[in-house]
Amino acid sequence: MALLHEQHFRAIENLVHEWARAIDEDRVEDICELLAPEGRYRVQSRFNADRGLPHSLMDAQSPAQLRDRIRSMRLANIYEPQHYRHLVSGVQIVGGEGTRLQVRSNFAIVRTLDLDGDMKVFAAGQCEDVVDVGGAEPRFLLRHYKLDSRVVETLMVIPI
Amino acid sequence: MALLHEQHFRAIENLVHEWARAIDEDRVEDICELLAPEGRYRVQSRFNADRGLPHSLMDAQSPAQLRDRIRSMRLANIYEPQHYRHLVSGVQIVGGEGTRLQVRSNFAIVRTLDLDGDMKVFAAGQCEDVVDVGGAEPRFLLRHYKLDSRVVETLMVIPI
Amino acid sequence: MALLHEQHFRAIENLVHEWARAIDEDRVEDICELLAPEGRYRVQSRFNADRGLPHSLMDAQSPAQLRDRIRSMRLANIYEPQHYRHLVSGVQIVGGEGTRLQVRSNFAIVRTLDLDGDMKVFAAGQCEDVVDVGGAEPRFLLRHYKLDSRVVETLMVIPI
Repeated sequence: MALLHEQHFRAIENLVHEWARAIDEDRVEDICELLAPEGRYRVQSRFNADRGLPHSLMDAQSPAQLRDRIRSMRLANIYEPQHYRHLVSGVQIVGGEGTRLQVRSNFAIVRTLDLDGDMKVFAAGQCEDVVDVGGAEPRFLLRHYKLDSRVVETLMVIPI
Repeated sequence: MALLHEQHFRAIENLVHEWARAIDEDRVEDICELLAPEGRYRVQSRFNADRGLPHSLMDAQSPAQLRDRIRSMRLANIYEPQHYRHLVSGVQIVGGEGTRLQVRSNFAIVRTLDLDGDMKVFAAGQCEDVVDVGGAEPRFLLRHYKLDSRVVETLMVIPI
Repeated sequence: MALLHEQHFRAIENLVHEWARAIDEDRVEDICELLAPEGRYRVQSRFNADRGLPHSLMDAQSPAQLRDRIRSMRLANIYEPQHYRHLVSGVQIVGGEGTRLQVRSNFAIVRTLDLDGDMKVFAAGQCEDVVDVGGAEPRFLLRHYKLDSRVVETLMVIPI
């Protein structure tokens, strides 16, 4: 509650929203630029994350690996055309050491299928991120999505 | 990411939330005051908007036209009593020239039917707005809702 | 729109998000610390609230009463294991007198059942809060949830 690190708040909030908007506007490749060179992107169920279990739905250990994943999505994966819409709330800086800040946010993603217009809350959960504010722009050292549900309907093709 | 125009951010964020709250609190008429005299309010599917197709679900080319639309809703339209609840996230100023700023935000609207209490995500998408910050209070020059789904369940009676 | 009380905005926004995060992270007890000693926590349907009807789904007239309610949830209530995820938007200070500020926000809560992973928008509505900003940290004098729907599926066990 002490609003430490408040001078970084708006830039970090903007970073979080920039990630979401890149995906929602179908510029998914752009999220790689928001990951620090040594950054990691990970999507796990809350169940696994809380127990320290290693299994992840997605786990990219560098921007290059994330870029590969997205390239495969564009070129190789067969999936029903769909769009995400991120709703993000409660961005908070909850701690930090030096230029590495612990950031939390809640999210829900509404997925719309292009063909029949079907719309549903596809994923909801919390992000437990680490953001480096030492550079010109803040970047994710860890972008860690924890999904509330263990059940992900069909495939998660597009990064969230 | 450069957080240009940051001095206008809070006033614009508040403008966006004020629009949503006016509708959700059933003071729909009040949104007309938030449109600039030369402002336009438009609701389109993402499909049509992305292709530059002209068809809109709603298109009011002035506050007076929007006021007419709302008056008709109050007096003439027959529809099942219902409430909207706007969830807005990711308000960002993404560009601008002079006092005209490009503003983006994500939205999802939960609609509740009064009689049986049925609740669903009725619409989700992005607003691509233009806001004039030249006056005493910011006002929408363009309030442009893009719906992710081409399928709108039953009628959209109440402006979103 | 006048952005009065703007100096308190971030601290109040943080208070609202802190409440949500405590519940979502299963630290429900912590919300009692966010209520002022003379604070009240109330959950009502919009239908009842708008008509001034007294019936509430939950009504704790002090932090101690809220603490009792949560203790009973932990020890006595039998219910299906579940998690909430709060999406909060449109935090606004809409008025105030002295150190007591009127605060509004919209919310939707996605509830996930642990066993089958079923996920749904469980509740949506508006908070009409009163926040005291006179102390070291802002605290809720009134935390008043108004639910859009009169129908709450099964039991509401966990405070929202």
